[in-house]
Amino acid sequence: MKYRRALFIGRFQPLHNGHLHVIQRILQESEEIIIAVGSAQESYTLRNPLTVGERIEIIHDVLKMLNAIDRAYIVPIPDINENAVWPARVMEYCPKFDCVYSGNELVIMLFERFDIKTVRIQHIKRNLYQGKVIRERILRGLDYRDLVPEIVYKKLKQFGFDERIKRLVGMQNG
Amino acid sequence: MKYRRALFIGRFQPLHNGHLHVIQRILQESEEIIIAVGSAQESYTLRNPLTVGERIEIIHDVLKMLNAIDRAYIVPIPDINENAVWPARVMEYCPKFDCVYSGNELVIMLFERFDIKTVRIQHIKRNLYQGKVIRERILRGLDYRDLVPEIVYKKLKQFGFDERIKRLVGMQNG
Amino acid sequence: MKYRRALFIGRFQPLHNGHLHVIQRILQESEEIIIAVGSAQESYTLRNPLTVGERIEIIHDVLKMLNAIDRAYIVPIPDINENAVWPARVMEYCPKFDCVYSGNELVIMLFERFDIKTVRIQHIKRNLYQGKVIRERILRGLDYRDLVPEIVYKKLKQFGFDERIKRLVGMQNG
Amino acid sequence: MKYRRALFIGRFQPLHNGHLHVIQRILQESEEIIIAVGSAQESYTLRNPLTVGERIEIIHDVLKMLNAIDRAYIVPIPDINENAVWPARVMEYCPKFDCVYSGNELVIMLFERFDIKTVRIQHIKRNLYQGKVIRERILRGLDYRDLVPEIVYKKLKQFGFDERIKRLVGMQNG
Amino acid sequence: MKYRRALFIGRFQPLHNGHLHVIQRILQESEEIIIAVGSAQESYTLRNPLTVGERIEIIHDVLKMLNAIDRAYIVPIPDINENAVWPARVMEYCPKFDCVYSGNELVIMLFERFDIKTVRIQHIKRNLYQGKVIRERILRGLDYRDLVPEIVYKKLKQFGFDERIKRLVGMQNG
Amino acid sequence: MKYRRALFIGRFQPLHNGHLHVIQRILQESEEIIIAVGSAQESYTLRNPLTVGERIEIIHDVLKMLNAIDRAYIVPIPDINENAVWPARVMEYCPKFDCVYSGNELVIMLFERFDIKTVRIQHIKRNLYQGKVIRERILRGLDYRDLVPEIVYKKLKQFGFDERIKRLVGMQNG
Repeated sequence: MKYRRALFIGRFQPLHNGHLHVIQRILQESEEIIIAVGSAQESYTLRNPLTVGERIEIIHDVLKMLNAIDRAYIVPIPDINENAVWPARVMEYCPKFDCVYSGNELVIMLFERFDIKTVRIQHIKRNLYQGKVIRERILRGLDYRDLVPEIVYKKLKQFGFDERIKRLVGMQNG
Repeated sequence: MKYRRALFIGRFQPLHNGHLHVIQRILQESEEIIIAVGSAQESYTLRNPLTVGERIEIIHDVLKMLNAIDRAYIVPIPDINENAVWPARVMEYCPKFDCVYSGNELVIMLFERFDIKTVRIQHIKRNLYQGKVIRERILRGLDYRDLVPEIVYKKLKQFGFDERIKRLVGMQNG
Repeated sequence: MKYRRALFIGRFQPLHNGHLHVIQRILQESEEIIIAVGSAQESYTLRNPLTVGERIEIIHDVLKMLNAIDRAYIVPIPDINENAVWPARVMEYCPKFDCVYSGNELVIMLFERFDIKTVRIQHIKRNLYQGKVIRERILRGLDYRDLVPEIVYKKLKQFGFDERIKRLVGMQNG
Repeated sequence: MKYRRALFIGRFQPLHNGHLHVIQRILQESEEIIIAVGSAQESYTLRNPLTVGERIEIIHDVLKMLNAIDRAYIVPIPDINENAVWPARVMEYCPKFDCVYSGNELVIMLFERFDIKTVRIQHIKRNLYQGKVIRERILRGLDYRDLVPEIVYKKLKQFGFDERIKRLVGMQNG
Repeated sequence: MKYRRALFIGRFQPLHNGHLHVIQRILQESEEIIIAVGSAQESYTLRNPLTVGERIEIIHDVLKMLNAIDRAYIVPIPDINENAVWPARVMEYCPKFDCVYSGNELVIMLFERFDIKTVRIQHIKRNLYQGKVIRERILRGLDYRDLVPEIVYKKLKQFGFDERIKRLVGMQNG
Repeated sequence: MKYRRALFIGRFQPLHNGHLHVIQRILQESEEIIIAVGSAQESYTLRNPLTVGERIEIIHDVLKMLNAIDRAYIVPIPDINENAVWPARVMEYCPKFDCVYSGNELVIMLFERFDIKTVRIQHIKRNLYQGKVIRERILRGLDYRDLVPEIVYKKLKQFGFDERIKRLVGMQNG
């Protein structure tokens, strides 16, 4: 293993196949993984429809599916709105880690200031696998089963995700 | 099982045998358990010496020891300092739960306002099993191995818990 | 009366004839009314020009005009920026209510999560009666007397509302 | 009348005969009164047992009893925890006022910094009429009907005030 | 001298020749100057790339260059996100001042509410001397030496300002 | 010089001879000094009577007296109430420093977590030179001229420090 414990941070609105791919890679390269759920306090907006509790439940199911729950930590991180201080909050909330995987250049810059090792990831099929595409599919009445793990798809249906998106965008005819 | 998913909330400064006892009981009465780590933002004070990251790591180890990691969620909850609103934050941060176990009368009162079922627990050996007793033992140079699970004891030594307490109380001779 | 005490929430920037219409309806359907003034902390922006104190003063005058001051509560609600928690703050700040009137789908969704009865209102003449139209009239040098109750119009003039809007948009030639 | 609109600020935990006396005096000296409910966000503590919503409801009833509801404003003020800034928040939340009545020296000092006229009040029967005495009576099983207006007494019973105090202090035998 | 101590507030992202011009004017009209660094908590965004520490260091160097360090105060002001209260925070953080210079109409309006004297400044070469133009030059690979004092230019190079801007905008080819 | 730029952090309520002694030592050991004014947002309490603006003005005068104003930075630091994150805020607000001088064990522990060099200082005449002693002298009607630099003494008199302390403690006979 390259790392003792690696951090992967995202908002997971919702967790899609791109996230899944990164998680699988990290599980091969690190003994343990921390999945940090950013913007924890956000929910019921178009950009952040799910509550942090719902996101934790989904990630937990995915980790069980991957047989990795015993070497994974799921940690919600509320925003601090003070960029230069934010990595210190991540370090505070998480068990000690030795590497941060991210596809977000800002995240990488901010952790570099604290001399923490970062790995820049390229998301696969970036034009497909992103929350925005899923939300647009819903708004156009299309399915998105090919974009998320099956177990996530079922949870989203159970949470009323599609209807929530539609109501948030003002699509309802109530 | 009595419950689908039960919540147990505490500060776990540190997790002691009293907490362990409650966790074991809940694991017998509920399919899943959420362990909510309160006052997440507090650390490096006499009352709250451990960071939330350290507390999560300890609880994770205890759940693995109990073979319960696949039916448990560990969720840090930052304080909101607005009592009447606090249960809504707990509900937001956690997967949906149907019962709250607590030995804290305020917690019970606040959740009652939101019509959530509560179970009042009696902590065992309350005069021994509490963070305060552990901290006092450390300050008097006594051992506290009998107060916490062995796995927790080892982590605390690794985190430099004893020295941190001593320094916080002004025991250093620097 | 259908309700014991109904809540009507808005930002009232400023209170216009659409709001007035809803207030009159609620006064017919409920023994008491709570007018919650949302985004209380906002002021001196184009979207939220009035301070909360000014909005309270205007609503107070309108309620006196309607002979309803003795069965009305005016309650400012500062934003909490955490959607899933926000209804709990409204419940905390207001006397107990049994129904929420709103034309805002998000407000309705959030209160539904707490099992609170909601009434979805259709604002009358929505294309005319809204803060945005009033502000645009001011910026184009047009009058807006037909959009707000006369008593509100006078208060706005007294508060220097028109000039404030113009200065905020950079219309001054100083 | 001496004043156009006078401010009286307190926490009203709960409103007692001392507060009533001041309110009556201000109603004689000022055309309008603003009753600002301080520490709005506090509740369910021994020092601040009532929610702000409950306090607003009680003050509303007292003002109706005094036939003064049409010349009164009840305004909750959340704490800002920055003393030098706090008067600016009070000014923001309230309709414009020309005088502050207070028995609290800190309140007087802070408003003086902003050149606002203050009136230092002497509370009557200060050793009897205070929240602390009421709470102590409850804890010793004594009545407190002589300390608060009758209409307040009834509301407190309806809110379960006595039981709340007892539970908060750990008096329950559950 | 017209004033005993004048306040100049800006974000200084970065300090450019327009700011320099105003500072020089104030040094001629006032015995002392306070340079208040607004939005102190912002950094590592396109609009606010520099940390407050970096901005303080730059302003300090400029004041030394102007031989004015002994009659100047540099004071960071974190945002309060409550416009009507913000001038009170500025007054709290700064030594007492008798005048505010600003080119921002909102700043002028807010201070007027507190009866503080304001001077409306016209920035010179406004189409050239602004943070936005500097950032655009960097993104198009052009130099900006003519827009900032030489001493600032050197500091920016030392801080890696250009690269930071490029990474924030996603210009890197990593 | 041992250091390029050293940080000294305190609350300076008020700056006394003990602080002066440390500042003089740092000026001998470091090319530049940053004086960080902690708990910036606190004022008008017995423990923190002065506003941050007053404290900055006093420190500025002392640095001028020491002929050190051109190699000194005075930086207010608002509390963050999250110990594990606090050093990151200090690093954000201040120009880059290579050493922290402190007599406070918590400050030292927290900076050690970020691998920053610390120097533990012994305050001279600790039983005399502290804010608490000065406040007690005032309350007993004694002078404190021997505890603070003369220039500070004059500023405190000008700010009405003694009267403020007396009013805060309830000593006034108004």
